[in-house]
Amino acid sequence: MKVVVLAGGVGGAKLADGVARILPPEDVTIIVNTGDDFEHLGLTICPDLDTVMYRLAGVANDETGWGRAGETWRTIGEVGILGGPDWFKLGDLDLAMHLTRTHLLRTGESLTAVTQHLCQKLGIQVSVLPMSNQPAPTQIQSGDIIYPFQTWFVQEKWQPPVTKVLLPEDVRATRSVIRAFETADLILIAPSNPFVSIDPILDVYPITALMEDLPKAVIAVSPIVGGEAVKGPAAKMMQELGLQPTSRAVAEYYDERIDGFVYDVQDAGSCDDLEMETHCLDTMMFTEEDRIQLAQGIVQFAEELMQ
Amino acid sequence: MKVVVLAGGVGGAKLADGVARILPPEDVTIIVNTGDDFEHLGLTICPDLDTVMYRLAGVANDETGWGRAGETWRTIGEVGILGGPDWFKLGDLDLAMHLTRTHLLRTGESLTAVTQHLCQKLGIQVSVLPMSNQPAPTQIQSGDIIYPFQTWFVQEKWQPPVTKVLLPEDVRATRSVIRAFETADLILIAPSNPFVSIDPILDVYPITALMEDLPKAVIAVSPIVGGEAVKGPAAKMMQELGLQPTSRAVAEYYDERIDGFVYDVQDAGSCDDLEMETHCLDTMMFTEEDRIQLAQGIVQFAEELMQ
Repeated sequence: MKVVVLAGGVGGAKLADGVARILPPEDVTIIVNTGDDFEHLGLTICPDLDTVMYRLAGVANDETGWGRAGETWRTIGEVGILGGPDWFKLGDLDLAMHLTRTHLLRTGESLTAVTQHLCQKLGIQVSVLPMSNQPAPTQIQSGDIIYPFQTWFVQEKWQPPVTKVLLPEDVRATRSVIRAFETADLILIAPSNPFVSIDPILDVYPITALMEDLPKAVIAVSPIVGGEAVKGPAAKMMQELGLQPTSRAVAEYYDERIDGFVYDVQDAGSCDDLEMETHCLDTMMFTEEDRIQLAQGIVQFAEELMQ
Repeated sequence: MKVVVLAGGVGGAKLADGVARILPPEDVTIIVNTGDDFEHLGLTICPDLDTVMYRLAGVANDETGWGRAGETWRTIGEVGILGGPDWFKLGDLDLAMHLTRTHLLRTGESLTAVTQHLCQKLGIQVSVLPMSNQPAPTQIQSGDIIYPFQTWFVQEKWQPPVTKVLLPEDVRATRSVIRAFETADLILIAPSNPFVSIDPILDVYPITALMEDLPKAVIAVSPIVGGEAVKGPAAKMMQELGLQPTSRAVAEYYDERIDGFVYDVQDAGSCDDLEMETHCLDTMMFTEEDRIQLAQGIVQFAEELMQ
């Protein structure tokens, strides 16, 4: 079964890792949100790509969920002393990724090619693709204020209430992304934030059309468990955008875009009467074993769905 | 006595520090070569400004002469692992300078303003000025090949023989630099490389004209001691450019641009018959005490010269 995973940061990275551990690498493509990307301190920073790559490479920081294991903070500490912006916590190892990526981009390589280079150096065998080679910055509108995504997310600690998520127009998918969709049997929407991790990917032309037209199963995994987001602002955003912070509301939000929905056993029964196939699994991924088990459960559900 | 020091990297930084330690800070301006500056890994790197600032701030690495004391190399090591360029050895603390500078430049501040900000954060009281706010990249011609300066200097370890030093046209001094020259009593050319550290400064419009027209003493300190450069490629370059690698040849190279010449006691007598005032001092600066003594000797020589 050829699987395309649509992933944001932490949750997406974990499920991507589970899938990568149970299928042959040539059958797995992770398409990653780049709406969070930004230019900072002169560097091109791609937080979701980094989180996915660090996890797949086995160098992720298990405590924070983002960044690298065994990280140190010497440079960013000194940036603060020198009066530079230190609100975005760039670790010493993590900085190497941003410096190398920025260098390669400046030589004229595409983000797709640069990502492939970095994956190869990190020993990652599955295909990791940015959703687009174009900059596609997500912005957060809060009343009259429009925040660049990372300003809202990190600097403002996602506290300003969200009126609207603003996605750029005319962002186009790469050939590699289109080819991945065309050859996939299963499109798996990871348990990432629907509004700021998944929507930016679905909004890239022609991804939604490809998902509608091609005969493949689309399964989403709920990022909401027991009325709360496992990590990040998803539940808070749902309330601010007029939705209930529940798995059921996530399924209803994706609606006709998905064929199947996986949600946590803690919410068992809450999605039974939806007009799509639903399946309860333990979606909490604390360990590698958890990630593998969830991926196995999803693949099994997908196989049933496709029969 | 108001002193303007024209400085390149290591030797310039040391003499600048000696001068800064014996005169009131408001009387000392260091004008620094920016011909070595380059864009690397997405960052704007100004090696001579950094060397001067680190020395003045008391955080310079005494062993290497460049970079910071107590430096570590975690990030650049990882850049190498990720297949990025690691030939320019950026330390973890040093990186903070480049990140902060790049950030401030991107906000639209001039290099002069950014340098002032960084000096203030580092507790530097004398005025440190880049020779220009414009990029003014020095290039090294070796036969048919033209190298960007740092490629020749660091990556090629200054081995390709120098046919010609290429300086950009139409580089203009800042108002702060012009004001410093107009109010100075003594212009002091530090024991830096005449071709790639001092010439780039003298070549900035209208610095040479200001030095000719204004009634001040100009004293140069020889970077050559006993037929060798104290550090770097000065002696090698002199031979490649058809000069003798001697203090005397340095004095003859500066010629009418200077009124006085300070050279090392090791070469005593070699410059006696030149048509300028010359003075022998111990120019080797191993310690802070050495730097202070040399600065004192130069100021005394300048006072005699001006009588």
